[in-house]
Amino acid sequence: MQTEPQAFDRVLSSMCTEPHPVAREAAERFLATNPGDPGTYPTVSALEDEAIAMLGEIAGLEEPSGYIAGGGTEANIQAVRIARERADATRPNVVMPESAHFSFRKAADLLGVDLRVVPTDDRYRADLGAVRAAVDDDTAAVIGVAGSTEYGRVDPIPELGEIARSVDATLHVDAAWGGFVLPFTDYEWNFSHAPVDTMAIDPHKMGQAAVPAGGLLVRDSALLDELAVDTPYLESTSQATLTGTRSGAGVASAVAAMEELWPSGYRSQYVRSRNNAEWLADALEKRGYDVVDPTLPLVAADVPRSTFDALRAKGWRISRTATDELRIVCMPHVTREMLASFVGDLDRLEVRASVPVACDD
Amino acid sequence: MQTEPQAFDRVLSSMCTEPHPVAREAAERFLATNPGDPGTYPTVSALEDEAIAMLGEIAGLEEPSGYIAGGGTEANIQAVRIARERADATRPNVVMPESAHFSFRKAADLLGVDLRVVPTDDRYRADLGAVRAAVDDDTAAVIGVAGSTEYGRVDPIPELGEIARSVDATLHVDAAWGGFVLPFTDYEWNFSHAPVDTMAIDPHKMGQAAVPAGGLLVRDSALLDELAVDTPYLESTSQATLTGTRSGAGVASAVAAMEELWPSGYRSQYVRSRNNAEWLADALEKRGYDVVDPTLPLVAADVPRSTFDALRAKGWRISRTATDELRIVCMPHVTREMLASFVGDLDRLEVRASVPVACDD
Repeated sequence: MQTEPQAFDRVLSSMCTEPHPVAREAAERFLATNPGDPGTYPTVSALEDEAIAMLGEIAGLEEPSGYIAGGGTEANIQAVRIARERADATRPNVVMPESAHFSFRKAADLLGVDLRVVPTDDRYRADLGAVRAAVDDDTAAVIGVAGSTEYGRVDPIPELGEIARSVDATLHVDAAWGGFVLPFTDYEWNFSHAPVDTMAIDPHKMGQAAVPAGGLLVRDSALLDELAVDTPYLESTSQATLTGTRSGAGVASAVAAMEELWPSGYRSQYVRSRNNAEWLADALEKRGYDVVDPTLPLVAADVPRSTFDALRAKGWRISRTATDELRIVCMPHVTREMLASFVGDLDRLEVRASVPVACDD
Repeated sequence: MQTEPQAFDRVLSSMCTEPHPVAREAAERFLATNPGDPGTYPTVSALEDEAIAMLGEIAGLEEPSGYIAGGGTEANIQAVRIARERADATRPNVVMPESAHFSFRKAADLLGVDLRVVPTDDRYRADLGAVRAAVDDDTAAVIGVAGSTEYGRVDPIPELGEIARSVDATLHVDAAWGGFVLPFTDYEWNFSHAPVDTMAIDPHKMGQAAVPAGGLLVRDSALLDELAVDTPYLESTSQATLTGTRSGAGVASAVAAMEELWPSGYRSQYVRSRNNAEWLADALEKRGYDVVDPTLPLVAADVPRSTFDALRAKGWRISRTATDELRIVCMPHVTREMLASFVGDLDRLEVRASVPVACDD
């Protein structure tokens, strides 16, 4: 196979990044292991316990339970599944802000729960009044987003927790992307700040582990029991994961990355990424674009579709929000030089667009 | 992180194996790519098309659709989900033999479908009379196993297809483990042999790719549409996978392994594995154990629990069937030397057990 993966030097749209060198090395060493079969692969299974312990530390949970999932989608599906299983309703519903990830739509479709999508406020956070109006006795879970996909915003998690408690629903926090930057902010987002029951927090996003390394954390191990099925031919007797065979590479690389980077490496990366996002937001504002103020390292700006397409044609990997804004995620591989080069290309396009072209005909 | 993954030299229980060197190399190169985001990672997305084309060739499907899943569990869940979506029933059911993998129990729980489990015949294959008696107008899918987890048996797939058609259900074939050995046998198991609608066929098992590389194949791309959800912020507009971010390493390693090994490398591996299984079955029979005749490279034998535990204590990774037989999977990493060493340990244990121990008290 001669194909080469493209380099990361123009990737501005991904919520994944180049794994940290120690994470890559661990992934390569554990490529042929399967934490889904702990009787056969006990070493990687023990590493998974370490990964969950470290995720618990990051997310303010003293006695964490959970597992390393394929990614945030799996963690979100499993959280909704837990909520469905413990709900006392024939047709349970889940209440979430419109800013929540589309994986919750997948979860609802898969699990047969109703999705009640409520608007966000003028700061792109879950509108608490709307959440309050949407919950009822059949609500199985309230979803809060801690670092939204489109604008990097953080919902008012403690208040969402109160609302969830008032109807005996679980509070699930989707910190799949935000979990490795939020510890260095003043946001209240984790298990120690609010009555959070379940959380998605992905080492393979801001945690700089190799894909696949998502994280599902639960406050109480009894919640995981809601997911257990019997495993007749494995030495372990039950399995709470969505998948069966799983990647030992993901688990090992998550442990390696967290051992290396928590907390100081993640902190300095957060500062770099935040400064980059602010620099980019300034640069775009100066050029007259409407910019959504970045509160986490993610910038959205009202760049016209034609300019966007021309930038894509130059090889920039960029994406758009549902309301058609340019969206750039300042992941660890995104450097100031990359952003300067991107803005340079934008300037050249804009100059060309504003200079009348001489035509012969 | 100082931990080392254990070696494969005593692993006899796994349905995964050491990736082929070309598969490992490809996995390492594509570690930081995500086929779940084809707008950002077009190269690995094109590789996934190649992987599906090659899986189609292996499984007798001329215009294949599908995707590289996390593993057989995801493929099985998605197949049941497709069946549920297209079924015209308020409470759909799925009919499967008791030999089917426990992932179908997960699927049923997740998706809210009833599972009707029917017995197997005296050759451990789905009992056709029982399947016929179990299906009705609410049957969404009939499951056939092509290479069962416990005994490596192949259900009568064409006959199961007829039964499925008679009630307008899909036929799903679970060839997650068997798919890379069955092409070299006389079994009728694939899309060209029977009206198969969906299939699980995993490159990361007998296909010698790195985890995670499962395969979901569907006869008609319209079946995949049953799974699609909108993906607002990605450049692609919908997503039919269960997970979101996916492993480019798995995809690239699947392509590399299949390019290298299909068909002659897989054929010679099959012959080696089958011969090893027959050798082991003979060796165990000669020692007086009841052995389930291996039809694919998997051996089950009635070895007492105490002996089993003593072998585990010696470091052998072995597992047991639901009816408590020793179960050994002759994967590519399992050599004749390993099996001879295993049988040697078994002999030493049995000698010790049969020699009376002198006691002082």
